[in-house]
Amino acid sequence: MNKKKIINDPVYGFVTIPSAFIFDLIQHPYLQRLRFIKQVSMTHLVYPGALHTRFQHVIGAMHLMSLAMDTLRHKNIPISSEEEEAVLIAILLHDIGHGPFSHSLEHTLIEGVSHEMLSSLLMDKLNEEFDGKLSLAITIFNDQYPRKFFHQLVSSQLDMDRMDYLNRDSFFTGVSEGVISFDRIITMLNVEGEELVVEAKGIYSVEKFLIARRLMYWQVYLHKTVISAEQMLIKILFRAKELAVQGTKLFTTSALNHFLTDKINHLNFLDDPLHLEWFTRLDDTDILSALKEWVYAEDKILRTLCQKLINRDLLRTELRNTPFLEAEVELVQNKVKAHFNLTDHEVDFFVYTQVVQNSAYDIQHNNIKIINNRGYVQDITEASDVSNLEALAKRVVKFAISYPKEIGHPLDGGNNFSKNN
Amino acid sequence: MNKKKIINDPVYGFVTIPSAFIFDLIQHPYLQRLRFIKQVSMTHLVYPGALHTRFQHVIGAMHLMSLAMDTLRHKNIPISSEEEEAVLIAILLHDIGHGPFSHSLEHTLIEGVSHEMLSSLLMDKLNEEFDGKLSLAITIFNDQYPRKFFHQLVSSQLDMDRMDYLNRDSFFTGVSEGVISFDRIITMLNVEGEELVVEAKGIYSVEKFLIARRLMYWQVYLHKTVISAEQMLIKILFRAKELAVQGTKLFTTSALNHFLTDKINHLNFLDDPLHLEWFTRLDDTDILSALKEWVYAEDKILRTLCQKLINRDLLRTELRNTPFLEAEVELVQNKVKAHFNLTDHEVDFFVYTQVVQNSAYDIQHNNIKIINNRGYVQDITEASDVSNLEALAKRVVKFAISYPKEIGHPLDGGNNFSKNN
Amino acid sequence: MNKKKIINDPVYGFVTIPSAFIFDLIQHPYLQRLRFIKQVSMTHLVYPGALHTRFQHVIGAMHLMSLAMDTLRHKNIPISSEEEEAVLIAILLHDIGHGPFSHSLEHTLIEGVSHEMLSSLLMDKLNEEFDGKLSLAITIFNDQYPRKFFHQLVSSQLDMDRMDYLNRDSFFTGVSEGVISFDRIITMLNVEGEELVVEAKGIYSVEKFLIARRLMYWQVYLHKTVISAEQMLIKILFRAKELAVQGTKLFTTSALNHFLTDKINHLNFLDDPLHLEWFTRLDDTDILSALKEWVYAEDKILRTLCQKLINRDLLRTELRNTPFLEAEVELVQNKVKAHFNLTDHEVDFFVYTQVVQNSAYDIQHNNIKIINNRGYVQDITEASDVSNLEALAKRVVKFAISYPKEIGHPLDGGNNFSKNN
Amino acid sequence: MNKKKIINDPVYGFVTIPSAFIFDLIQHPYLQRLRFIKQVSMTHLVYPGALHTRFQHVIGAMHLMSLAMDTLRHKNIPISSEEEEAVLIAILLHDIGHGPFSHSLEHTLIEGVSHEMLSSLLMDKLNEEFDGKLSLAITIFNDQYPRKFFHQLVSSQLDMDRMDYLNRDSFFTGVSEGVISFDRIITMLNVEGEELVVEAKGIYSVEKFLIARRLMYWQVYLHKTVISAEQMLIKILFRAKELAVQGTKLFTTSALNHFLTDKINHLNFLDDPLHLEWFTRLDDTDILSALKEWVYAEDKILRTLCQKLINRDLLRTELRNTPFLEAEVELVQNKVKAHFNLTDHEVDFFVYTQVVQNSAYDIQHNNIKIINNRGYVQDITEASDVSNLEALAKRVVKFAISYPKEIGHPLDGGNNFSKNN
Repeated sequence: MNKKKIINDPVYGFVTIPSAFIFDLIQHPYLQRLRFIKQVSMTHLVYPGALHTRFQHVIGAMHLMSLAMDTLRHKNIPISSEEEEAVLIAILLHDIGHGPFSHSLEHTLIEGVSHEMLSSLLMDKLNEEFDGKLSLAITIFNDQYPRKFFHQLVSSQLDMDRMDYLNRDSFFTGVSEGVISFDRIITMLNVEGEELVVEAKGIYSVEKFLIARRLMYWQVYLHKTVISAEQMLIKILFRAKELAVQGTKLFTTSALNHFLTDKINHLNFLDDPLHLEWFTRLDDTDILSALKEWVYAEDKILRTLCQKLINRDLLRTELRNTPFLEAEVELVQNKVKAHFNLTDHEVDFFVYTQVVQNSAYDIQHNNIKIINNRGYVQDITEASDVSNLEALAKRVVKFAISYPKEIGHPLDGGNNFSKNN
Repeated sequence: MNKKKIINDPVYGFVTIPSAFIFDLIQHPYLQRLRFIKQVSMTHLVYPGALHTRFQHVIGAMHLMSLAMDTLRHKNIPISSEEEEAVLIAILLHDIGHGPFSHSLEHTLIEGVSHEMLSSLLMDKLNEEFDGKLSLAITIFNDQYPRKFFHQLVSSQLDMDRMDYLNRDSFFTGVSEGVISFDRIITMLNVEGEELVVEAKGIYSVEKFLIARRLMYWQVYLHKTVISAEQMLIKILFRAKELAVQGTKLFTTSALNHFLTDKINHLNFLDDPLHLEWFTRLDDTDILSALKEWVYAEDKILRTLCQKLINRDLLRTELRNTPFLEAEVELVQNKVKAHFNLTDHEVDFFVYTQVVQNSAYDIQHNNIKIINNRGYVQDITEASDVSNLEALAKRVVKFAISYPKEIGHPLDGGNNFSKNN
Repeated sequence: MNKKKIINDPVYGFVTIPSAFIFDLIQHPYLQRLRFIKQVSMTHLVYPGALHTRFQHVIGAMHLMSLAMDTLRHKNIPISSEEEEAVLIAILLHDIGHGPFSHSLEHTLIEGVSHEMLSSLLMDKLNEEFDGKLSLAITIFNDQYPRKFFHQLVSSQLDMDRMDYLNRDSFFTGVSEGVISFDRIITMLNVEGEELVVEAKGIYSVEKFLIARRLMYWQVYLHKTVISAEQMLIKILFRAKELAVQGTKLFTTSALNHFLTDKINHLNFLDDPLHLEWFTRLDDTDILSALKEWVYAEDKILRTLCQKLINRDLLRTELRNTPFLEAEVELVQNKVKAHFNLTDHEVDFFVYTQVVQNSAYDIQHNNIKIINNRGYVQDITEASDVSNLEALAKRVVKFAISYPKEIGHPLDGGNNFSKNN
Repeated sequence: MNKKKIINDPVYGFVTIPSAFIFDLIQHPYLQRLRFIKQVSMTHLVYPGALHTRFQHVIGAMHLMSLAMDTLRHKNIPISSEEEEAVLIAILLHDIGHGPFSHSLEHTLIEGVSHEMLSSLLMDKLNEEFDGKLSLAITIFNDQYPRKFFHQLVSSQLDMDRMDYLNRDSFFTGVSEGVISFDRIITMLNVEGEELVVEAKGIYSVEKFLIARRLMYWQVYLHKTVISAEQMLIKILFRAKELAVQGTKLFTTSALNHFLTDKINHLNFLDDPLHLEWFTRLDDTDILSALKEWVYAEDKILRTLCQKLINRDLLRTELRNTPFLEAEVELVQNKVKAHFNLTDHEVDFFVYTQVVQNSAYDIQHNNIKIINNRGYVQDITEASDVSNLEALAKRVVKFAISYPKEIGHPLDGGNNFSKNN
């Protein structure tokens, strides 16, 4: 009798761990760390269920990948067991370089150090630890493997990463507009000339996938309250670092302390392995415990921002289709300066503008390919005559301004509908 | 203790029958007849689960209507209990005039007698039977009630009819692309100036509803195999009537016999109540039992068409974006005439062209209205700056030709992709 | 590129047809006939969604079987491709001998001819037509294959047949109490000594499966209104045959006519292949079209029963824990005789008693086996110390009496609770 | 136009906040704190999705309560708007006294201070803050309101608390055995003599609810790995307090520090409001940040336990039906002492026994009442003749022992099946 380890996933049900080696990888502290890093950082302040972690996501993406392998094998695409294990590992590790609240961190504590670079460093380190057993996975991950479809399943406009995160974020936020028929799309995958293609029958499912992605952007990822909370966190970390560099003593865990007091750039990471080691000790807990203590900090800026974030008294954020004029921003800044008695430097922690943009389908790169009944391959935009793909490729840009609610609605002159949308 | 009758609906769970009078209406043979009329006629030949009936649909639509009433009342829209019962009855009866395989029937046995007219006649008859207790429901149904939103909930671009049939057809076909968030949309409904509006937050759900409708059209309602089967049924009934009028004796139930042997138009329905009575005895069983027997009919045309339909050897149907040229149709007809040894008159039963079209959103009439936080109302196309509504309003037209598979692919010259799509 | 035929199933999503030969089998008229035979006959009169067919069921059971094959292969159980195709065919054909409203038919028109015998005859006929390609499937079906687990997957207390019908009946009735975690159970299957076993972790899922089955019996299969409708159909067919044998002319389709006018037993089926041929032309349509016409029959008994069944004015059925006494039955019969002016012979068509019984788990035969982490196999009743299996094995017996509502509640003396349950 | 605040809940979809006052309560820091307290503490180490919080739970339970209010009103049970708001508040606040990892905390840092007592203190404080507007809610909560059914909906064997947590824990763990038909049960609720009753038709749904609860106990709440993790946390907090009291300096947040260094009992809470204030600053973050740092603590016991818990190298736990003998425990202790070089005092942090027990239905207290069609009320055990309720009432007791994996399987003499179950 041969048994397999199983993980219960609320999204897909039972997920089988495909091999003993992959089980060992999952048990490694680098992957266990992802249990404590939420997938969509501050989104749970808007959608209370969105507490799911990057750990769940990578397990889920691996599961979808194994479904894709089954489908392709049933269609007689030759796939060796080495290739299968490698592509499963590649997707399992694709997010390993993410830190807590990744987006915020990359703008503050580890400025200029991308999660892609950290992933790469960590994969190499694991490959060393495991005697080169990850080499093929890394080759696929870096798109250096000749059979392109393996990389395309890891990273493209129709990869298992997106397929899982849309599903999962939709499931845990409860935003049903993001639900996709992943099983239908996967069933329709095929390979032609070593490239990933979708069978013609699946064209509607792909279209719905692209639309679901667009709806998730505007309802979740770029929701004005979500971007407000994330911007507040950036400002808090920025202020804390400012204070720490000046020598102010702040409550932190040791790992957070390492990144708060030192200015660490990507060269430092390459030079000194200590930085990477400290990085692997960081998770959401380090940030959250600091935020909670800083509610009682001496510094007014830090204290006020933390109070507002922890008590969910978030900055008001307005979205509109045209940029905010300098005069408008100044008007808001002046109101805030007066109300909170702030200097020019300090007001920047309370008033900020952002540009927010998204298109559902990138018509330039790596287009999704459709194959018809007779093996003829076309770009999806040409293959579908009932589709809206051109509309989906259009980049939508919005402009945001955030400021404390205490000053009311200073810009509220007309009846600009989209502000309230 | 006060108890309510309950119906188990696989789509919504428990559906409570709202009142004793509505329970009596449901028990009436006119409504019980809908138990034996499938909602999407021949679609189950493509999607085997699609056996659901108009009975289930009207019960479901009534359920959604009562959710809508609850929502509006919670928002302090005054609704009297008479109005509530009337709008529930209006939606319950909206399909009462449908015959078996409605679309096919209206083109053959009861040519020119619309199901709307029959609904109206049957509602009047019921109103008589029930001493005028349906008067307000009929007023709402006919859009003669001053509070417009009641009629809009029964019939508009966002009515409970569409909401239920999309949901239900999606559920029973298993085409998940048609799933809509009916509960989210209903929660977002409101009334402004006695007209139905949707709150701004619901704009994404409405957009997804329109897209789901479009996908259902192309994947289900206008699926080429579905339209092929329906067209075959039209031809069969047409042939049977042709034979019956000539005096050929065919197996039929008595109700089908009535409509097969007589030419009955809408004036006859108005003149002689007997026609309506016979009509209320017709359901899917009458048509299906005849089709099964006609597999052994003497007439070659009738026999062959019935054999093909019952054994699911359906005519091949090709769809494309440009009309079929006369020369192309002739080419096909000649092949079929030769292969089956048919006359010019007879070949029309085996070769036919159709124009198939759909737009998801009708930009001209009864547009969906959005209301923002401050009570400002706009058409959805103006209110949404991230939306694809213009693309959805575009009418998509396709052209179809059908013929027996025995003659191969006579038109298959080039690599016209959409043929195979 | 290699493509597979796909069927959309609302219960499982996409179902892939596993091979070209199986596709041909599905296209055979014997299997297409199952499209017109409802899985749970008259149950839709109580649960309007329950219109699903035996066709859907056998496709679904085949799908579960292919999931089971995948699971076992992943656990390194050697399974040849011949064995896989054979077990898929065995489950696909397991219900092929069912007629319309099987249970009723077996008690009337083809008395004493079991659907198992008809299945066997039809499988042999198919095997002949397909040059012996079904031989291994038939061997497995008849439990003559040495590797027992194949047969156990087709027919045992945990087979794919039960797994699908519980799922499916639950889905289409909307009785969520019957929902089972089929994927969890299948994932837990394994083979030990060529027998089917369940891994210890799956013990709760199996227990829930047995409980779900029990709840489905009492809420659906043995629901008092369902058994009332089925008993009425038996009486109708019995009466129609009585009349037909006496020479009364009744509306029927030709296939129904064959079985109504002749007394056909299982020996006739073996002697004359014509009977089997007529049998394969029978489906629900034949019965339903007759019922509809007989509403207007001359014979009062036949007419009244058909009116009541078609208009859903079903006989009242009472269930209780103790048998109905002769005196009670006589009391009811006398009331009915008086009210409807019936003879002793005639009253039997309107008053009848039944014994209704069920146990969820048959503790005597083919018990479910559990295997623990170290390969030790035990009967589930011994393996589970938290379970209720003894309670589930208890046979529950109830007694039913049915009679027309017109006579009120003649037996309503006491406050016997279970009557109303 | 009147709008309502809405929360997206992945379990139920949209949840409407019923009133402005309830919205203010939800915004209060006491309730916002529940956003950072997981509902099922360490369970996510076994079921990675189980990160849902007490905040989500109380919102969900409030939603079910408002469905229950709607149902009862539809059945003409008079309910004033004051009563409705009060019962909604009562359920919203029922868990307000829970601390992080409640169970563990109550055994260590705030020994002997129950969450019920803390809830009561916090409700009184809120009532003060809100000028007595919670008085009726508190009366209902304390079962001092004459209309018993309100309290029964808050707390009984069929209350909205259980209904939500089973649903929710099932949803987030992915253990589908726990799914219940809450909507069916709620639809079947009624009131007789001011007591909560279930209509007879709902008996199967109630039975399934009790079974689901039992399965959740054994698959989730009492899962051996879950109880192992929770016991480890208790030992860690116990050790940390031991060290802190001795004057060892440990990393902590300020709130945790308060409870680690002082011995605080329930009298202290009543005497000095400061304790309650510190308590309201405690959440999961305080505990987790400490655990992470203590991985590097000087004390070997503390360090080792934290390393094991954070790296998910949990103690092995064995479950069986008979108590572990003194000799067995000693055997294990001796192995552990030898392997880790521990004293008698120290070994208690690594080896422990527990008694684990559960019954699904408490046959003694507050039995569930069933009402039949004619208003006759019975206890569910008498009303159901097909049920297993006696089996469900049976108390199941198991015995657990936990110890580090490093020492192997010291007790592994025989083939005791239940150990591995």
